[in-house]
Amino acid sequence: MALRIGVIGTGMIGSYHVDRLATQVSGAEVTAVFDVATERAKEVAAGVGARAHAQATDVIEDPTVDALVIASPGDLHADQVLACIAAGKPVLCEKPLATTTQDCLKVLEAEVAGGRQLVQIGFMRRYDAAYREVKAALDGGRIGEALLLHCVHRNPATPPGFTREMALTDSVVHEVDTTRWLLGEEIVAVSFRAGRTSPHAANQDPQMVMFETASGVLVDVESFVNCQYGYDVRCELVGSEGFASLDNPSHVTVAHSAARSNVVPADWKVRFGAAFQAEFQSWVDGVGSGDYQGASAWDGYAATAVAEAGLAALASGERTSVQLVERPSFYAGSEASR
Amino acid sequence: MALRIGVIGTGMIGSYHVDRLATQVSGAEVTAVFDVATERAKEVAAGVGARAHAQATDVIEDPTVDALVIASPGDLHADQVLACIAAGKPVLCEKPLATTTQDCLKVLEAEVAGGRQLVQIGFMRRYDAAYREVKAALDGGRIGEALLLHCVHRNPATPPGFTREMALTDSVVHEVDTTRWLLGEEIVAVSFRAGRTSPHAANQDPQMVMFETASGVLVDVESFVNCQYGYDVRCELVGSEGFASLDNPSHVTVAHSAARSNVVPADWKVRFGAAFQAEFQSWVDGVGSGDYQGASAWDGYAATAVAEAGLAALASGERTSVQLVERPSFYAGSEASR
Amino acid sequence: MALRIGVIGTGMIGSYHVDRLATQVSGAEVTAVFDVATERAKEVAAGVGARAHAQATDVIEDPTVDALVIASPGDLHADQVLACIAAGKPVLCEKPLATTTQDCLKVLEAEVAGGRQLVQIGFMRRYDAAYREVKAALDGGRIGEALLLHCVHRNPATPPGFTREMALTDSVVHEVDTTRWLLGEEIVAVSFRAGRTSPHAANQDPQMVMFETASGVLVDVESFVNCQYGYDVRCELVGSEGFASLDNPSHVTVAHSAARSNVVPADWKVRFGAAFQAEFQSWVDGVGSGDYQGASAWDGYAATAVAEAGLAALASGERTSVQLVERPSFYAGSEASR
Amino acid sequence: MALRIGVIGTGMIGSYHVDRLATQVSGAEVTAVFDVATERAKEVAAGVGARAHAQATDVIEDPTVDALVIASPGDLHADQVLACIAAGKPVLCEKPLATTTQDCLKVLEAEVAGGRQLVQIGFMRRYDAAYREVKAALDGGRIGEALLLHCVHRNPATPPGFTREMALTDSVVHEVDTTRWLLGEEIVAVSFRAGRTSPHAANQDPQMVMFETASGVLVDVESFVNCQYGYDVRCELVGSEGFASLDNPSHVTVAHSAARSNVVPADWKVRFGAAFQAEFQSWVDGVGSGDYQGASAWDGYAATAVAEAGLAALASGERTSVQLVERPSFYAGSEASR
Repeated sequence: MALRIGVIGTGMIGSYHVDRLATQVSGAEVTAVFDVATERAKEVAAGVGARAHAQATDVIEDPTVDALVIASPGDLHADQVLACIAAGKPVLCEKPLATTTQDCLKVLEAEVAGGRQLVQIGFMRRYDAAYREVKAALDGGRIGEALLLHCVHRNPATPPGFTREMALTDSVVHEVDTTRWLLGEEIVAVSFRAGRTSPHAANQDPQMVMFETASGVLVDVESFVNCQYGYDVRCELVGSEGFASLDNPSHVTVAHSAARSNVVPADWKVRFGAAFQAEFQSWVDGVGSGDYQGASAWDGYAATAVAEAGLAALASGERTSVQLVERPSFYAGSEASR
Repeated sequence: MALRIGVIGTGMIGSYHVDRLATQVSGAEVTAVFDVATERAKEVAAGVGARAHAQATDVIEDPTVDALVIASPGDLHADQVLACIAAGKPVLCEKPLATTTQDCLKVLEAEVAGGRQLVQIGFMRRYDAAYREVKAALDGGRIGEALLLHCVHRNPATPPGFTREMALTDSVVHEVDTTRWLLGEEIVAVSFRAGRTSPHAANQDPQMVMFETASGVLVDVESFVNCQYGYDVRCELVGSEGFASLDNPSHVTVAHSAARSNVVPADWKVRFGAAFQAEFQSWVDGVGSGDYQGASAWDGYAATAVAEAGLAALASGERTSVQLVERPSFYAGSEASR
Repeated sequence: MALRIGVIGTGMIGSYHVDRLATQVSGAEVTAVFDVATERAKEVAAGVGARAHAQATDVIEDPTVDALVIASPGDLHADQVLACIAAGKPVLCEKPLATTTQDCLKVLEAEVAGGRQLVQIGFMRRYDAAYREVKAALDGGRIGEALLLHCVHRNPATPPGFTREMALTDSVVHEVDTTRWLLGEEIVAVSFRAGRTSPHAANQDPQMVMFETASGVLVDVESFVNCQYGYDVRCELVGSEGFASLDNPSHVTVAHSAARSNVVPADWKVRFGAAFQAEFQSWVDGVGSGDYQGASAWDGYAATAVAEAGLAALASGERTSVQLVERPSFYAGSEASR
Repeated sequence: MALRIGVIGTGMIGSYHVDRLATQVSGAEVTAVFDVATERAKEVAAGVGARAHAQATDVIEDPTVDALVIASPGDLHADQVLACIAAGKPVLCEKPLATTTQDCLKVLEAEVAGGRQLVQIGFMRRYDAAYREVKAALDGGRIGEALLLHCVHRNPATPPGFTREMALTDSVVHEVDTTRWLLGEEIVAVSFRAGRTSPHAANQDPQMVMFETASGVLVDVESFVNCQYGYDVRCELVGSEGFASLDNPSHVTVAHSAARSNVVPADWKVRFGAAFQAEFQSWVDGVGSGDYQGASAWDGYAATAVAEAGLAALASGERTSVQLVERPSFYAGSEASR
């Protein structure tokens, strides 16, 4: 009776999800996995009593798999999601939906053609209690009309080979979705500013990424992926009557040696663990009945479109417009359209 | 393969646990329930596909029940826990273990006689991330030796019939366990102070309850169960080099009309929901292999002993010593004895 | 045209006041000083162009002195204040007014006989913006009726020879006045609790001092004069509808190495410098016209009476009542009588 | 022996300064004032025992005036400051030094020709304890190298006729000086972003103003002069090892009705009153001996140059460079050059 889940990709994020699905989510079990790192896949599979397949498509087609979670490299997402749709199986795909808007549109087309929602994108912040409180403050009218959104997205350090483009597509893309979801509208333009670079960074870092929304809300995102001191994600939504700001929780204060201090989250697992938990439990609960609370394929498409414009802005140094196709009525309930 | 759980008591807390066990805890299912409120029990059972039994003992003896959760009235706990031990089934019993130390001792005796731990007491704060951070600050030496512990335990309002004795046995008993667990030592005396009573209270409220520990740490607990403005549980542990203080999380700040504000938790579900989740998942995970992380029957006994001394102190107005039997070596690993 | 001030006592506090009066307060100048430490007095006098007298009474009688500030040892205060009253000169006397209630009563008698207020006691917290905000929250009805007051009074370390009695008379006496002033009523009983002592303390430390007010408000004061980590004065006033709590200001947060931190004030000068400034400016402004905003001789008497009861409680270990004479109508406007 | 001060301009700010200088600053008196609003000037003069002159130059030339404070309209500052220099009298001039860089340069030239510093600009934030703490965090190496500076500058509402240009020259100019002083370097370019306008604003509001410094630090300033909820000035300085952020002080928390709240300052007087006090006391103390701690004429010139570039950027929509003359060695000690 549990939802039998196949997980594609058992790297850092994929195995993190496997562990959660197998041991912390009610009504779920992991029955099959795949990763190009075969040994790693076998190890992860053994840990939860699942089978390790030789190919991603084998997982999708496995009759003991009811639904899929995709945590493979981003450039493989589109084909894998399309295969899930073809198999008629629900899929929770880590961002991005695809690395190009063209590929995203193929997914939208396939899903619309199939006639029922199967795809959810893993934007877990939508399940974070604090982000929800910010959204509730806006939606409840307590801060008036949205005018500005300031965001900070800092990571302590990056792995070798991490480029400034990746800071946009892998990190700031969360702010893309946050912006669309919080404000309920699309981003229409992207620009960049870059100044001094941290001595700890191999590439330009920090970077200021700036969005404009359809109604004219200005958004600025500080992307700083080598900030050293911790994982620090914050935002302040400024309205015409007040603001709602989101900071790291500060539950415990320790004082000694003339200072009071709070811990900064070490990484995204610490900060967003509860959001992932809520995301997966909600997806497992609702996927059978088609009750999706999270980001849709449309949201995935829009995020990729903004990222694509962002890459162009990065290359040209110019403010770049985001061009979206007309939204299919199929996605009418999607958060960013209210 | 899931742990099949029987739940005794389907009132407010019991049904809250049933819901969590059935829908949010991995590897658990609820197969049987009982409550004297028969209709309510049937309704709760139906909601999760369990059977509603005619008696508590039927749940305990039900062959489809591997382990028990007890959330019945406190004066029934001892007999029900004893029946679980007799049946050789693990049991997570809501506080108190029993309403008298005499009954607690019967449970200890039975458990020790059985030769393996079966009983855990539902002191969920031990699973709360913030309380753990306070404990880590002390255990890690960051604040020196413990000297004082200040606690605040406020509830917005009480149901009719709630007495000042109940404030001790139902509410402050959490601080009893918190004190023992944080400090790793026993409480040896209890006293009371009472002053002005809130116009919203039917009985004396607030009350100051004061503990002394074996090593001489002074603890004061403000118990205020009609504080009106919210559910507010805090503490500050003062050491010889600094302090660790625990406050409500303040993730989001909303500003308007000349003020910045944070929400105070509405009730214990909001504040301790994640702790309950961790408690139940941990119990379900470990109960099969006898790996208990939570409070033991000894901890339950000690809490009742302190509460008993507290009731005497309340009646007499005098500082009252807590008399504990010698701790069986069976409970050597119990948190409060390190 | 400036108020010409004589300062008796040029130790740590006295010279701090001389410096402020001479260089930071408008409309004031220091014309004469005295201290038994003759060289120190001369040095301080030279620094501000004042004369160093051979005796305290010479300062009081000096025709170039319009008003006095007394910062000598506490057991000399009564005689010096009486001399000021005899000379008809306003006097701002550091706490205590006198070390015995009997001596305090002599001052009250003399001041009442003189027919006009001349004496103000240096309880500077009444001028602190944060304490005023707490008082305004209560007086404005925002937190309902006062029920409890929790206080913390921590100093990093004490000089050699500092006794536990001095923690009461020199340190906690500020909470005595704060309590009376915030709540507008008298303290009627005092008791003590003592537990573990800090390894950094030569005497019992910390100590819990507890007051009861006329209307039954319970007050607890943690006195910890060797807390090591900083100067930390806080309180939380709990009312029937909410609370007002006062913490150290946290204007600036610095993050590095996985922690965000705020500075704890190093000492009372850092924490209460602005309060002293307001106190002295207000006193200098109003003293000519008899417009006193601060604590009166009555307040000084009441503080000493509570301290006296406290010392008895300390000696006996018993709750000790505070016995006050009937308040002369002369002091009807005194803060603690509303 | 007090410094005799003439104040030019007795409007809102000028009379605020007159009151402080006459009643709260040690060693200062106000002997003469001028304002085109003759009746207002007479009233202010009478309140402090000063003379109201018929012309600004009369105040400057008044032999009972040792030093000047200028709080007249900005377009009159240059001529008045030049007159002060000509008279050889120290002058504390409210920002701006002049409304054009050309006029600023005339002042620099005159002051340099005179051979000694006479001019200080009223950038009071340099005296604010919190801003100093941020600067100390950077200068002390605790946050590494400066990389980004985020600023928020919000006012509750603007008077009629307030333009978006004035938001730059009257309000954001404080961030211009803060940036230069905190970072110790010049601003080399300015740009603007504007999006949705508040329904409470007559002109574009909020606006994002962006600076680049000589070393490449990016600065963003949210200017929002109709934010409704209060006066809110904050900043976060991001370094290569951590950050230092400055928020409103939160000394007192009041809880009721399910929320804990802090007051937001009502206006700049509440927020920066202590900074003005420190600024004026410091100026009065040091002006005689030529010991200036505050912003120099060079700082005033640089601020006007940035504002001028800002106005061009506002008009053109383009990033605009700031062109400064070479700094005379006379101003070598100026803060922004260390």
